[in-house]
Amino acid sequence: MLQELGIRARAAEPKAALLQCKEKNRGLRAAAEALVKYKAEILEANQRDLERAKKNGMRQALLDRLQLSEDRIQGMAEGLLQVAGLEDPIGEVVGMKLRPNGLRIGQKRVPLGVIGIIYEARPNVTADAFGLCFKSGNVCILKGGSDAIDSNQKIVEVIRAALKEEGLPEDVLLFIADTDRETTREFMRMNSYVDVLIPRGSAGLIQAVVENSTIPVIETGTGNCHIFVDETADFDMALEIIDNAKTQRIGVCNACESLVVSSKIAEEFLPLLKARLDKKQVEIRGDKRAREILPSIVEAVEEDWGKEYLDYVISLKIVDCFEDAVSHINRYNTKHSEAIVTRDYCHAERFLNEVDAAVVYVNASTRFTDGFEFGFGAEIGISTQKIHARGPMGLKELTTLKYVVYGDGQVRE
Amino acid sequence: MLQELGIRARAAEPKAALLQCKEKNRGLRAAAEALVKYKAEILEANQRDLERAKKNGMRQALLDRLQLSEDRIQGMAEGLLQVAGLEDPIGEVVGMKLRPNGLRIGQKRVPLGVIGIIYEARPNVTADAFGLCFKSGNVCILKGGSDAIDSNQKIVEVIRAALKEEGLPEDVLLFIADTDRETTREFMRMNSYVDVLIPRGSAGLIQAVVENSTIPVIETGTGNCHIFVDETADFDMALEIIDNAKTQRIGVCNACESLVVSSKIAEEFLPLLKARLDKKQVEIRGDKRAREILPSIVEAVEEDWGKEYLDYVISLKIVDCFEDAVSHINRYNTKHSEAIVTRDYCHAERFLNEVDAAVVYVNASTRFTDGFEFGFGAEIGISTQKIHARGPMGLKELTTLKYVVYGDGQVRE
Repeated sequence: MLQELGIRARAAEPKAALLQCKEKNRGLRAAAEALVKYKAEILEANQRDLERAKKNGMRQALLDRLQLSEDRIQGMAEGLLQVAGLEDPIGEVVGMKLRPNGLRIGQKRVPLGVIGIIYEARPNVTADAFGLCFKSGNVCILKGGSDAIDSNQKIVEVIRAALKEEGLPEDVLLFIADTDRETTREFMRMNSYVDVLIPRGSAGLIQAVVENSTIPVIETGTGNCHIFVDETADFDMALEIIDNAKTQRIGVCNACESLVVSSKIAEEFLPLLKARLDKKQVEIRGDKRAREILPSIVEAVEEDWGKEYLDYVISLKIVDCFEDAVSHINRYNTKHSEAIVTRDYCHAERFLNEVDAAVVYVNASTRFTDGFEFGFGAEIGISTQKIHARGPMGLKELTTLKYVVYGDGQVRE
Repeated sequence: MLQELGIRARAAEPKAALLQCKEKNRGLRAAAEALVKYKAEILEANQRDLERAKKNGMRQALLDRLQLSEDRIQGMAEGLLQVAGLEDPIGEVVGMKLRPNGLRIGQKRVPLGVIGIIYEARPNVTADAFGLCFKSGNVCILKGGSDAIDSNQKIVEVIRAALKEEGLPEDVLLFIADTDRETTREFMRMNSYVDVLIPRGSAGLIQAVVENSTIPVIETGTGNCHIFVDETADFDMALEIIDNAKTQRIGVCNACESLVVSSKIAEEFLPLLKARLDKKQVEIRGDKRAREILPSIVEAVEEDWGKEYLDYVISLKIVDCFEDAVSHINRYNTKHSEAIVTRDYCHAERFLNEVDAAVVYVNASTRFTDGFEFGFGAEIGISTQKIHARGPMGLKELTTLKYVVYGDGQVRE
């Protein structure tokens, strides 16, 4: 069954790759319309998922993610229309060069091919992932969480029918209906049929994919993001940025989880910091030196430094110098997003160079690590690995470059 | 023991990343000089490897690869000097853009970090891999084949001592001395310490790494390369290219292994082809239609189409149309290098678009798929996977891009 899906994906791959931009946009618009048109059926399927999930005792936060509404379906449709409005990444030729022997060698942007996406019980990912993969000329095979199976299947059915009606290859969107673990395991080893696997979801899901996949994985990951306030920082700016990065949205990977403050300003800055964070009920867990200044705060233990709280909690470390700040951050961060607040030119440039993360900031909130904020118009996830793509991934990150070589009879000597 | 190496690698990583170009070049030159200076010791170690290998009954072709000589050591040293002459890829900033909120977002080229390289009994890879990783600001952990253990250890020792003498961090070059399988397996799962794994060697080695590694792998692979001669091809050009791609060097991944010829010209072209290949004693294995024209050739069986002969053998398929040629190639190729010989504009462009491979050629030999021929000045391998890098990989492919963001207090709304 899985192999059959793989064969269908490979058969659809060249068709997807060669679709013209206007055909892809037509497909996206038709899919968007169909989602709205069949919203009653989608909500009905979602209702079945919700009832099953409640019976299985799913937590409220997860139920919220699973639940669809007219608005959410509208949102999915609008997402597809937005992707239709984006520039087609396919076909761009990068850096054509003439070699001494007369060969012209360039790199052409082409789809990755067949993209596998493994995700949890968020039905909106089904439409989002399809839209991005389709616009970038890829075929996608989706494997959603078992809790959302009815919603996902209905959404896939609606989109595929819309594509078919437009005379477009419906097999650009394939869905794995089996939800047992063995199928997922097998899927992660289908190297002949799948070019790249993208896991979207919790740290546990991502870890399982990294551990078990033999297909190249683009790891999207957790964010233990730091903000370093050095001794030259503008305090108002630092407080604004910390407040924003910690509390503007809790529970996202680009939220700030840990502060590093220069000992030269700690005595003056920490009371201001505490006053500011108290307003939002953020608990501070500080090291020994921080607690000497703020005796009322909780003591941070070793595991606090590596923790992605996703909650109204933040850790606080006092350092004596720039080097200590950088080595603390490089030791505990998850290579996601890191920021410095400073007025010092040398600290700013050194921070950008020396901190190892997908995105490094001077004087800005870590919350900007996001495909939309970066101007990509869409996002499939935020890569925290180093190969292929780092940071927010948009349409371009779902493509690869192939060398195209124009000759007139050249042979190698 | 492996973990200790990992810790040393991570400790050396920021030092390697921040070395200036002139320091790296100084290290490369010192390493090159040291290899020549200590050639007697290296040859002695190599002699021990050779004697053990002979006792173990190693085949002559493999013994040739294992054997060092004064010339080969000189070659290794020259390789390092060449790398010293290349432009430093680190620090380049790609595409800085100003966002509407005033943030300036750019991408800076940085090292991958710690690169693991697993290879077989070719001691020259030890020096080559070090040179490329070091120049691109990376730390490398090498795991060479057990048959070359004495040679490899001596080469590593000589290079590390040269770096130390120059006051450079010797731990940029680390070597795994244990040669048992369990250690290799463990190495492939050291995700906390190794950012990327590059296997170099036989298909079996690469397959084992892809199967067992949880670290991202850059797959360098086998080449079942095709040349398609369409009905408009210049026969002389086609014969030159085929002769070159098949026979200029046997046993390399960019050699041509299979021909596809249009039925419209087969009757006229095949006798010329046979006469040309006969001169080099190349055996042709043809399909039924090819054998109707050339009754003396061997019949190709199904497994011939997918085979990388690395020998004086080539398969031959007759097709009726362009589409059949492309689908045959896409079915059996290994995504390495593919060529068309044609005078038809539309066929040329369609071939470049529709054939799925790292490098696609019009009217040139597939033998050009090579870092030096592409003008990179060096090569760590040829990637046949789609993510991160496709085709020949030089220094740039051993780097990644990190986002650097310059703000003046921006927070997210």
